Amino acid sequence: MNRKTYHFFCLLFVFCFHTLIQAQEHPKLILTKQGVEAIRAKLGTVPLFDASLSKIKDEVDAEIATGIHMPIPKDYSGGYTHERHKKNFLILQKSGVLFQILDDEKYAVYVRDVLMSYAEMYPTLPVHPKERSYARGKLFWQCLNDSNWLVYTSQAYDCIYDWLSKKERKKLEKDLFKPFADFISKGNPQFFNRVHNHSTWGNVALGMIALVMDDDQLLNRALYGLKVDNLSEDMKDNDGGFIKTKDQKIGFFGNLDEPFSPDGYYTEGPYYQRYAMYPFLIFGQALHNAKPELKIFEYNDGVLLKSVETLLNLTDADGEFFPINDGQKGMSYYSRELVTAVDIAYHFGGENAQLLSIAEKQDRVVLNDAGLSIAIGIKEGRSEPFLKKTVNLLDGSDGTEGGIGILRKDDMELIFKYAAQGLSHGHYDKLSFSVFEKGDEVLQDYGLARFVNIEQKGGGNYLKENTTWAKQTIAHNTLVQNETSHFQGKYEIGSKNHSVLHFFDTSDENLQLISAKEKNAYPGTEMHRTFALIMDNDYEKPYILDILKISSETNNQYDLPFYFLGQVMEVNFDYEVPKTLGQLGAANGYQHLWLEGKGQPKSKNTKLSWLNNQKFYSITMAANLQDELLFARIGANDPSFNLRRDPALIVRRKDISNTVFVSVIESHGSYSPVSEFAVNASSSVAALQVVLDTVDFTAVEIESEKGNTKLLIVSNVNASKEQKHELEIENNKYNWTGPYYFGQLKK
Amino acid sequence: MNRKTYHFFCLLFVFCFHTLIQAQEHPKLILTKQGVEAIRAKLGTVPLFDASLSKIKDEVDAEIATGIHMPIPKDYSGGYTHERHKKNFLILQKSGVLFQILDDEKYAVYVRDVLMSYAEMYPTLPVHPKERSYARGKLFWQCLNDSNWLVYTSQAYDCIYDWLSKKERKKLEKDLFKPFADFISKGNPQFFNRVHNHSTWGNVALGMIALVMDDDQLLNRALYGLKVDNLSEDMKDNDGGFIKTKDQKIGFFGNLDEPFSPDGYYTEGPYYQRYAMYPFLIFGQALHNAKPELKIFEYNDGVLLKSVETLLNLTDADGEFFPINDGQKGMSYYSRELVTAVDIAYHFGGENAQLLSIAEKQDRVVLNDAGLSIAIGIKEGRSEPFLKKTVNLLDGSDGTEGGIGILRKDDMELIFKYAAQGLSHGHYDKLSFSVFEKGDEVLQDYGLARFVNIEQKGGGNYLKENTTWAKQTIAHNTLVQNETSHFQGKYEIGSKNHSVLHFFDTSDENLQLISAKEKNAYPGTEMHRTFALIMDNDYEKPYILDILKISSETNNQYDLPFYFLGQVMEVNFDYEVPKTLGQLGAANGYQHLWLEGKGQPKSKNTKLSWLNNQKFYSITMAANLQDELLFARIGANDPSFNLRRDPALIVRRKDISNTVFVSVIESHGSYSPVSEFAVNASSSVAALQVVLDTVDFTAVEIESEKGNTKLLIVSNVNASKEQKHELEIENNKYNWTGPYYFGQLKK
Repeated sequence: MNRKTYHFFCLLFVFCFHTLIQAQEHPKLILTKQGVEAIRAKLGTVPLFDASLSKIKDEVDAEIATGIHMPIPKDYSGGYTHERHKKNFLILQKSGVLFQILDDEKYAVYVRDVLMSYAEMYPTLPVHPKERSYARGKLFWQCLNDSNWLVYTSQAYDCIYDWLSKKERKKLEKDLFKPFADFISKGNPQFFNRVHNHSTWGNVALGMIALVMDDDQLLNRALYGLKVDNLSEDMKDNDGGFIKTKDQKIGFFGNLDEPFSPDGYYTEGPYYQRYAMYPFLIFGQALHNAKPELKIFEYNDGVLLKSVETLLNLTDADGEFFPINDGQKGMSYYSRELVTAVDIAYHFGGENAQLLSIAEKQDRVVLNDAGLSIAIGIKEGRSEPFLKKTVNLLDGSDGTEGGIGILRKDDMELIFKYAAQGLSHGHYDKLSFSVFEKGDEVLQDYGLARFVNIEQKGGGNYLKENTTWAKQTIAHNTLVQNETSHFQGKYEIGSKNHSVLHFFDTSDENLQLISAKEKNAYPGTEMHRTFALIMDNDYEKPYILDILKISSETNNQYDLPFYFLGQVMEVNFDYEVPKTLGQLGAANGYQHLWLEGKGQPKSKNTKLSWLNNQKFYSITMAANLQDELLFARIGANDPSFNLRRDPALIVRRKDISNTVFVSVIESHGSYSPVSEFAVNASSSVAALQVVLDTVDFTAVEIESEKGNTKLLIVSNVNASKEQKHELEIENNKYNWTGPYYFGQLKK
Repeated sequence: MNRKTYHFFCLLFVFCFHTLIQAQEHPKLILTKQGVEAIRAKLGTVPLFDASLSKIKDEVDAEIATGIHMPIPKDYSGGYTHERHKKNFLILQKSGVLFQILDDEKYAVYVRDVLMSYAEMYPTLPVHPKERSYARGKLFWQCLNDSNWLVYTSQAYDCIYDWLSKKERKKLEKDLFKPFADFISKGNPQFFNRVHNHSTWGNVALGMIALVMDDDQLLNRALYGLKVDNLSEDMKDNDGGFIKTKDQKIGFFGNLDEPFSPDGYYTEGPYYQRYAMYPFLIFGQALHNAKPELKIFEYNDGVLLKSVETLLNLTDADGEFFPINDGQKGMSYYSRELVTAVDIAYHFGGENAQLLSIAEKQDRVVLNDAGLSIAIGIKEGRSEPFLKKTVNLLDGSDGTEGGIGILRKDDMELIFKYAAQGLSHGHYDKLSFSVFEKGDEVLQDYGLARFVNIEQKGGGNYLKENTTWAKQTIAHNTLVQNETSHFQGKYEIGSKNHSVLHFFDTSDENLQLISAKEKNAYPGTEMHRTFALIMDNDYEKPYILDILKISSETNNQYDLPFYFLGQVMEVNFDYEVPKTLGQLGAANGYQHLWLEGKGQPKSKNTKLSWLNNQKFYSITMAANLQDELLFARIGANDPSFNLRRDPALIVRRKDISNTVFVSVIESHGSYSPVSEFAVNASSSVAALQVVLDTVDFTAVEIESEKGNTKLLIVSNVNASKEQKHELEIENNKYNWTGPYYFGQLKK
């Protein structure tokens, strides 16, 4: 009996015997009777909890004063009816909590009255009139948002459950909750029965209301999915993702098993991990309270709580998530989802004192045991700084589908993506990277082409430029072969492949390396990219060495873009700027780039310096004199001004099969418009060159302006830590053990 | 005997009689014997003073430890030799002060040794090898920077004067200070003998060293200029400004009389006012100490101290100066010049408690009586918030050459420029405006095309795009006729003209108006622009109503650009975007604009909404159905990427003589990428139209989305406050007194 089957029988046992004797008292989901008593006893003594309570009370009181708003659904996100029903469920949940904590009936009355209005309206509603979704809801244009509604209102219902009359409960369950749950599950198997953040919300919505209503059949559906769905295998959702795959996992456990890696990395990327964290963790908490025998927080080595820490490591210095895949920039650990997540992770995960400092920054807590617990921790002065780490987060349910590496040193952060596709929210950008300094983007990942919930911009939904631009390879800091995207930009292919880690070594914090290979993005071509983050006294700050080795069976054109953010200060090559701007290419994202300038190297190194956020940056590249150097700017074929007009420098190498692109990226110096001092405005790299490149080894020399030369040798084939190597370069022998050598050049 | 002649004789009297009996003790410039004693007595008791002292001590100690650096001058600003000699004079001044306050000889030794090195090097120096300046220095590429050097080192010399031997003093004065002073004055009359911030620095440099050396002849030259200069009247400086004009005022008093208006507005604009403030005020302080009989701070109604408050009013919510004319964005009241200015204004100007809050933000004080005084004020808790006002700052030495109006309400700030040319740093942008909200630009003034002191960018000097773009009219939010700049972009014409105030009324803070006319920018055409900043309950925030009335003798093409900053959200008109981008025009700045889109109104109103800094903005314009609506972007013909790629919407009206452009600019709502809520994302203006436009009156209706309609009538000819008016519009009579009517539309 394998683990999963065993698990199933355990649960069956639980159902058969425990449900009968289980306490039927409410609240039982997020709040518990004992929890509420503990909270009431502490009121007025825990500052952050009191402040959070007072803020929510003010918000809810103000909202209740405006009456009940129950418009007939008609809008996309950002529109009035959408935002109104969204507000309703957020306020309902809070009002329920206030009733429990403050014991003031006005909040129960409000929850009841609003829910009763929904019970009147819901049975009369057709499917939502907006037709864009593959799974249209009733209150909202997507079942996804309907599920959000149920996750929150379940909590409100739980809070007033005992206070309501039996008759009221019956009405609500019969006219509202049960048909609502059926509609988003049985009525929309293509939404409910998959592995996707959408389904997670759907599963949890059912699970939450099932726990409140003590409906085991519904709970079973939530946990294990619909038994019958009649879905065909070629169905796709709006984002182009497959609905059903072979051996499809389903239900809450399916969604917990599949997209989370053992490292707690969620395959869609941090923006969606954040979005999914709320249902995962709130339902985790509910199951912990109502079904403690499931030991949900210990499931899969405690992946739920581990994932919170992983997610925090996927933020920049300002707490904003790295915008991998379809991530909207600016989303951060200040979001309501992360407040819940951090509080739960602290309370149920061993009270890690580093989480207290995040909660302090968030400056609010959730109003339940977890929030109380973290607020007490802060009050007692136990907070420690959250130390973000250099991490290599493996992707895939068993950790074998590539990953995301984050190298950190001082204020520099390098994010290297060699992961799996990331489901329907994935971008075609194998071996791409981005660089941050102190929370500011240095080399950017574009993120998504969408203005979430801003109705004027395509109803707040994905814009077509998300497909034609943001997902395309050329929109990222990685290699494009022959102006086509990785996997031809096809989800069918991309979703079956992932890059492979070559090695990851951070044993020396002054010399952190990560190396990975991609063989499937372009059949017949292997890309092998190695990044080193190096602290060297000849340089002001840690610099990045980027070695991208290409081996192909055919001659190709290779484009390697660098999306630097800021204003060009200086280049060391000649280029021409056109009188009129034309598109860089016809398709695969190239149609969105204007060609602003074109040049060629005039020395062995190509250098570009720029200024951003009062800091100077330089990129130095080992040049091939036939390279074309293209200044590009995003914004062509963008009739609605949906894209940002950001620049890039693209290195183009033509008619070549095997080659190595080597670059050094430096942050150096600063400029103050107040003192008008420009400090260390120039690059410290005097020369950069590839001194050896074979199947087995690639060796690169970096000479500093101070005259010292360092050598990095990468072992391209054997990445074993124990392997001994010997190599002669320019009549000097180098001996070392492991996948790389780094040291002074011998002369 | 007029005032100036009287003043001259007073000074002569002072020279003849007082010099003989004057105390020869040093320091006497910025520090005084008594001042130093007072400071020493307070050490350790005034936190901000102590902190400032400690910071400067750390800085100077660190610098002294690196030894003396005396490179042979060769670089432009931003380059090593320039920045090194600049650092030298800043450290020398500080070191001198530390010697006085801490009584530690190490600082005197350092000052002496560095000055002696200069005394060795200076006589050997040729004119600076960089040839770009109209007045090349010796240590620096401009006499301007040489003057900076002398202003600072005079203070250092003063501090160690008594400590030096007579022989040492003799050597320094003979080999360094006297020839240095002669070179920047007699050697460069084209630099020294004019009204310009350059000359102010030159005059003050001579004045400061003259006071230290007790050299009355030199002081006389500083105060009244060179008697003979042999300059011709057609000479120009590098910025295209005239060197000499008829009835040229010269010397320090000339520079004090001429560019400052009675309101304390400095005609070049706040960026240069800030630059000039340091020499003005430091020399003011020196004269106050060394020549108290001059009563310098009472001169011209106390204009020197008044100008500090004026300058503070010329900053946005972040303390940054509005970038009128050649202003570099980001310069602010945190600059060292403003620290000095605020401290002096507080100490010598009646201890205005509002200045304490600025000093608190600056978080440092100068190390002299003034700094001690303000630090004590802060320590004693007397600080009050600095209240920035709605102000109308008149330009011109007698306040009759137009002005700058700043309307403020809540977080909105509107800056209206109807001033004189602003000397050689002026832009050709009569009746232009810009808008700020909470320190963020909403409609921007481009500022200058220069990266001050960043050597990579044209030696840190003005770039050619400053002339071809930043100074041109089309680079500003004002009217361009027939694609030519105001005054044909000619300084000769522009410097002889200014706009004229029509009226300024802020009696009601919810309805602030300013109105001005320009008749000379385009001969035969009169522009009359009125701005109202209106707080109305139908709108979330104060909105701006902009009425630009044009009357011309000929048919013309009119372009009115709005340089909105941010991302387009929505427009209500159709437009086409080109496949390739071409220049909007051939010259006068148009060659720097790409045409990104072209459309026409399809209703009576043209509306554009955009998002910036998480806030929504809209501009609604009363449309003429023949209007061309042009989306433009800066960046064409910019081979070195010197310009920012910022957008504009330009309204073009062709083949018309008289017309009115009417616009409403709103800030509304907000977006949070963390909560993903978009609030109040749409404009509240339902309709906007001109209901009457005659020679005498222009009337505009604004209808809100809530259905209320307001009417503004401007009296175009008679702006008297007492004048009674009667006007019939759509069969309703309006009676009022004064230059405008505002109220509910009668129906």
